[in-house]
Amino acid sequence: MIALHLLKEPAQQGKRQRDQRQELLSRAEAISADLARRAAELDSEGKPPIAEITILKAAGLLNALHPTDIGGGGLDWVDGLRLVRILARGESSIGQLLGYHYVNSQYPYWAVQDPQKAHDLGAETVEKSLYWGAAVNPRDPGLTLTKSGDHYLLNGRKTFSTGAHVSDRINANAAFGDQIANLVLPTDRAGYVASDDWDNIGQRLSDSGSVEFKDYKVYKSDFLFPLVDKDAAPPVPATFNTPLIQLVFVNFYLGTAEGALAAASDYVRTTTRPWLTSGVKAAREDPYILERIGEFHATLKASAALADVAAEAVQSALSRGRNVSERERGEAAIEAYAAKVNATHVSLDITSRVFELMGARATASHYRFDRYWRNVRTHTLHDPVFYKAREVGDFELNGRVPEPSLYS
Amino acid sequence: MIALHLLKEPAQQGKRQRDQRQELLSRAEAISADLARRAAELDSEGKPPIAEITILKAAGLLNALHPTDIGGGGLDWVDGLRLVRILARGESSIGQLLGYHYVNSQYPYWAVQDPQKAHDLGAETVEKSLYWGAAVNPRDPGLTLTKSGDHYLLNGRKTFSTGAHVSDRINANAAFGDQIANLVLPTDRAGYVASDDWDNIGQRLSDSGSVEFKDYKVYKSDFLFPLVDKDAAPPVPATFNTPLIQLVFVNFYLGTAEGALAAASDYVRTTTRPWLTSGVKAAREDPYILERIGEFHATLKASAALADVAAEAVQSALSRGRNVSERERGEAAIEAYAAKVNATHVSLDITSRVFELMGARATASHYRFDRYWRNVRTHTLHDPVFYKAREVGDFELNGRVPEPSLYS
Amino acid sequence: MIALHLLKEPAQQGKRQRDQRQELLSRAEAISADLARRAAELDSEGKPPIAEITILKAAGLLNALHPTDIGGGGLDWVDGLRLVRILARGESSIGQLLGYHYVNSQYPYWAVQDPQKAHDLGAETVEKSLYWGAAVNPRDPGLTLTKSGDHYLLNGRKTFSTGAHVSDRINANAAFGDQIANLVLPTDRAGYVASDDWDNIGQRLSDSGSVEFKDYKVYKSDFLFPLVDKDAAPPVPATFNTPLIQLVFVNFYLGTAEGALAAASDYVRTTTRPWLTSGVKAAREDPYILERIGEFHATLKASAALADVAAEAVQSALSRGRNVSERERGEAAIEAYAAKVNATHVSLDITSRVFELMGARATASHYRFDRYWRNVRTHTLHDPVFYKAREVGDFELNGRVPEPSLYS
Amino acid sequence: MIALHLLKEPAQQGKRQRDQRQELLSRAEAISADLARRAAELDSEGKPPIAEITILKAAGLLNALHPTDIGGGGLDWVDGLRLVRILARGESSIGQLLGYHYVNSQYPYWAVQDPQKAHDLGAETVEKSLYWGAAVNPRDPGLTLTKSGDHYLLNGRKTFSTGAHVSDRINANAAFGDQIANLVLPTDRAGYVASDDWDNIGQRLSDSGSVEFKDYKVYKSDFLFPLVDKDAAPPVPATFNTPLIQLVFVNFYLGTAEGALAAASDYVRTTTRPWLTSGVKAAREDPYILERIGEFHATLKASAALADVAAEAVQSALSRGRNVSERERGEAAIEAYAAKVNATHVSLDITSRVFELMGARATASHYRFDRYWRNVRTHTLHDPVFYKAREVGDFELNGRVPEPSLYS
Repeated sequence: MIALHLLKEPAQQGKRQRDQRQELLSRAEAISADLARRAAELDSEGKPPIAEITILKAAGLLNALHPTDIGGGGLDWVDGLRLVRILARGESSIGQLLGYHYVNSQYPYWAVQDPQKAHDLGAETVEKSLYWGAAVNPRDPGLTLTKSGDHYLLNGRKTFSTGAHVSDRINANAAFGDQIANLVLPTDRAGYVASDDWDNIGQRLSDSGSVEFKDYKVYKSDFLFPLVDKDAAPPVPATFNTPLIQLVFVNFYLGTAEGALAAASDYVRTTTRPWLTSGVKAAREDPYILERIGEFHATLKASAALADVAAEAVQSALSRGRNVSERERGEAAIEAYAAKVNATHVSLDITSRVFELMGARATASHYRFDRYWRNVRTHTLHDPVFYKAREVGDFELNGRVPEPSLYS
Repeated sequence: MIALHLLKEPAQQGKRQRDQRQELLSRAEAISADLARRAAELDSEGKPPIAEITILKAAGLLNALHPTDIGGGGLDWVDGLRLVRILARGESSIGQLLGYHYVNSQYPYWAVQDPQKAHDLGAETVEKSLYWGAAVNPRDPGLTLTKSGDHYLLNGRKTFSTGAHVSDRINANAAFGDQIANLVLPTDRAGYVASDDWDNIGQRLSDSGSVEFKDYKVYKSDFLFPLVDKDAAPPVPATFNTPLIQLVFVNFYLGTAEGALAAASDYVRTTTRPWLTSGVKAAREDPYILERIGEFHATLKASAALADVAAEAVQSALSRGRNVSERERGEAAIEAYAAKVNATHVSLDITSRVFELMGARATASHYRFDRYWRNVRTHTLHDPVFYKAREVGDFELNGRVPEPSLYS
Repeated sequence: MIALHLLKEPAQQGKRQRDQRQELLSRAEAISADLARRAAELDSEGKPPIAEITILKAAGLLNALHPTDIGGGGLDWVDGLRLVRILARGESSIGQLLGYHYVNSQYPYWAVQDPQKAHDLGAETVEKSLYWGAAVNPRDPGLTLTKSGDHYLLNGRKTFSTGAHVSDRINANAAFGDQIANLVLPTDRAGYVASDDWDNIGQRLSDSGSVEFKDYKVYKSDFLFPLVDKDAAPPVPATFNTPLIQLVFVNFYLGTAEGALAAASDYVRTTTRPWLTSGVKAAREDPYILERIGEFHATLKASAALADVAAEAVQSALSRGRNVSERERGEAAIEAYAAKVNATHVSLDITSRVFELMGARATASHYRFDRYWRNVRTHTLHDPVFYKAREVGDFELNGRVPEPSLYS
Repeated sequence: MIALHLLKEPAQQGKRQRDQRQELLSRAEAISADLARRAAELDSEGKPPIAEITILKAAGLLNALHPTDIGGGGLDWVDGLRLVRILARGESSIGQLLGYHYVNSQYPYWAVQDPQKAHDLGAETVEKSLYWGAAVNPRDPGLTLTKSGDHYLLNGRKTFSTGAHVSDRINANAAFGDQIANLVLPTDRAGYVASDDWDNIGQRLSDSGSVEFKDYKVYKSDFLFPLVDKDAAPPVPATFNTPLIQLVFVNFYLGTAEGALAAASDYVRTTTRPWLTSGVKAAREDPYILERIGEFHATLKASAALADVAAEAVQSALSRGRNVSERERGEAAIEAYAAKVNATHVSLDITSRVFELMGARATASHYRFDRYWRNVRTHTLHDPVFYKAREVGDFELNGRVPEPSLYS
């Protein structure tokens, strides 16, 4: 039996729950506004955001999706993804990191067979406000586990491990002969090495460098569940990390674009000069600027509306727990992937075009207004958008659901 | 006091109401599927859809938004607009006509001061399944009313009166000196002349020709409310016809595009041959066709999600009844207008590009697959999309709500 | 030896030739302007344009590309394709028909081994102003030739034979056992049947119905050259019909879009009313209309500039005659196919969007302003644009030239 | 009389001239290829490109447009702008700087009344390979000139003076009472201060900081021509700097996009891994990558074709010398502005989307592949693209030519 009974449905929420929800949303808004003020500097430095994650911990945001009976916020994924979007408005990587943590730290509820283990992992996480990362890039050769007396030794390297420095726990898979071990590993144990090799044009705070395990000791208690055969299909609930992480992407892309549009609008109101031949006294009255802002908002609103609809679909399927079928998972995933396709185009377009509202002087380096485009340009390459569109098309045309994988 | 108390909120719905809602949605789906089969022929003929409106009447769809206590369906606008979208999938003009009727026939609830009058109009409408049209094109010179003994005479002409032949009742405004009369007029009275001058490239069943009133007798009981001064601002609830009619547009544009994509997908599955150099055995496996279908669905889903969000916003504001402020009306209207901007682009793009899925032989005239584009191309010109975008931009940048009018 | 020496290079042109060129361009402009005035009616009727082809004959336009020494106009393909574009501005199908004739009637110069035969065919064609069609749709089963005494009998059917009723001569291929016969066939011989089955949403005057040959007698003199093996590769010059016919497409797509923009601009100047909230006194001063017209012209100018560059590249390769290599042919073809990809997108976009300049009343059926979009929408499906783009990409990325075929 | 007779027309070129042209193009190609290899590093440093301008000088590229009789290259603007495009493929700012120099250093030929003065300025420029900059930003308050004994003193500041550090000569205008002085100023004279305040997200080598003149001594011989009244319209030829500088923009935008596409294609060939579900063995065979590369090339080719057509139009008008009318200037300028509109969209789109070909790892900072987008994003804001489109539309719809200014 898996631990899905721990998830509460939104309809069961009472007033206290509603208050807590409102409080978490408000804190997210406040932190996001503060991040917006400091984002140019943070982007310039491009360091692991240790202080920022500490702020999220203090605000209770890391625990927002855990059940209330262990002290969590009790929010569902629809709200959790909204929190991601809100934070990404202020700083894109922080939105990403919050969302990744949600998926990684919720994973035991869906995947672990022993409900007590899932409960204990959750309870410890909430109590200590632990940040959960992962080292699971499927395009890298895997980690290997070998037996060493009463324990195991883990060795190997994974690139693109988002949150490598800020993680307290790391989800990892490792080969043990023909079997696979699913592990949750503390990062304060000897042999865990997070590198400083993340230096990309965007998501510069996402701390997505490589991690290495060097004779890292692994104990029985680190296993999420017993060893499984290499080719064994996981239970359906355990495959929800993919549609959910894709929805995390969707929401921090859109949040980033919303942040770009807000910053550009503010710049237009305060700084842009009316064009010489425009015949208007202020840039904020320019017919072309007004029309484009209208177009950008219309497009963003549509994409955000789909993001919410897709979140509801995935939450609804997930809430079916052990009873969810692969078909139901697939149908919900298609909603998420359609949202991914749409959000990719929308966020790239808007983060590039907001400059047309602001004018030439907005390209001064100190504003770092290019960071919005750099951020979405970088992460929207996670997996090719044309293959995501193809999956949606294959479902709509041929009725095929995507084969579950870390990309689909 | 106006009649807004007659509107039920969705939350108050019980099981019986849910069943009725489901029944209405099912009937709409069935009628839409039947229309889809006959749409090419109907489009070719381009006649007023008398038989089709009769079918809507028989199915109870015309009464879907009226309160249950007078025998209506009790649906809110969110559902009503969904019905419009569903019908437009089968035939675009029928979706348009249903939506126009909803706005015209609900108008008394928002605008009439005397609740008994609104109730009586509604009750008669439901009992007789009356179709309500309107003759209010604001770009035409107005109708004029003159006193003639114990009654009045109405004279004048209005172009683009959608549903001219199928209407049982017509909303109309007429000048009476410096005052304006708001009238609901039966069409079976002498002096009402619906012309056969609607012959446009799209929405060919929408029956949108001109109407003329020639010494048409008007009685006191035809007045929705007493004469008002020409420049008097209407009460805020009475201005909700504009955001709602714009949402009708949104939903029949999207329904039309959904219908086009469904028809094209069916054609790909059954008829399109794989391209010579594609290397696939069936067009349904072509990588480019699959990707484009995915893209089209992603875009349509986003636009439809925004349509629903906007419908909720407008319904929510409308539900505030007499208490709704001009600001609240404006904020809700902006959601509708953003949806309008988005749906315009999306529906035009998809109805043109679905041909690329099907291939050259799909241009044979007997399919009339061009009707989808012709339909949205025709009606999306109702008011210029750039000025709608501008209104959205002016709100987002400058915080201004649109000045209420028949376009905004 | 093939007959390519009959082609003159532009640089050798003298004053008389320049005058003749100017005269042909002027006549094309005049005929195009006349067609524009009658195009709505012609489109409505959708009949084979017998009178219009007669006008082209009288103006000498059918002979424009034949050598001057046999009485032709002596123009090169760059100019010939300009004539196609000019005529398509007035009526798209007439542009198409002129271009198809050019390719079909020039084909003997590239493909015939016996220069005297090519000369004689050209001389008769010029003298009698013959229109050349073709029955070569490669997606249909072929025609078959059988021996019958001292002659042959041709049987079979081909769909989409543009100009079926207006053709004096028809290029056709037929299977004769394992060999292929290349034939030029007079249409006034018994057994040639042009059907009236062309009824498509666009290119309605293109007379593109099916043709059938029923025991049609074929004589030795009808053979363009001796029988060839089924799988024999044609000489490189004989494969230029494909890049040239694709350039014909490009030019009549662009001409159609130019015609649409001209008609819409005229409508804006004469008929469109300024929008209520525009603040301008005439639609021609509306900022959004002005900007969009600027955008459309910029896009069209770019596509037309590429069309001309590609025409020069193909003409230049063709002028190398027997010496042209498959690589050179391929490199020139890529220019044409890039132009095809660009013109497809541009012409579809503009013919749909010109309505936004004109406003709602321009959708009245009698204008038939939708014909521009219907025309390009119909023919741009000739072969899938994504596969054309793929060919261009394969050349640019991998250096591969397209394998010659009737599509590439 | 102005010095336009010094310009040679292309048709007058002989073999020696053709060889010299070919040599200059080859040198530009070689320098561009070298720049491409070093561009990531140069962009990172973002310093004035002193060494690179020295290379251009040594190659004779700065003198390419000067008449051959004073030792220049004798190229026309069509070729000069091609040189700009070629260099921008390697490094965008170097393309910009070359083009700016061409406009600034050719300006005396069009504007100076005394042909001997123009000749002497040209001869000295060629002999010493002088780089010409300008300090003319029209959105800044102007420079002021005051009399001081037998000379003048120049004071004031101008932002965005491209080439501030690398210039040997600076074109400048200064107010002298109600008159305007047109000056060519050596930068090695006391009082010229080029600031290090150019730090923008793109065109980082363009050396576009502010310059200040502090009691800078100006002599009679520094005047290009006598003082003119503030409101005096310049002679038509003197207004060609605007269409020409706009064509410089066009060509370095397109060159930058061509450089981006070349770099991305190279990366696909050498580095990108095929996608997991693509079914192909190499990324270079991926159907979506091939199609997109085809699309990008088609679009770029069209824009470049228009750039060349516009260059020919402007060169042709310029070649009319004193006889060119304001109307002719305007018609040629419209071609340039249409090219500007098109190149803006095309270069922004392609420099952003090439990442989709390369995949996620191409976002590593050390590649600096984002520089292409940053470069075009920065400079395409020089003047708002919507107002350029509007000018084109106003010409096409209303027949109005743009009023000459430093932007139009």
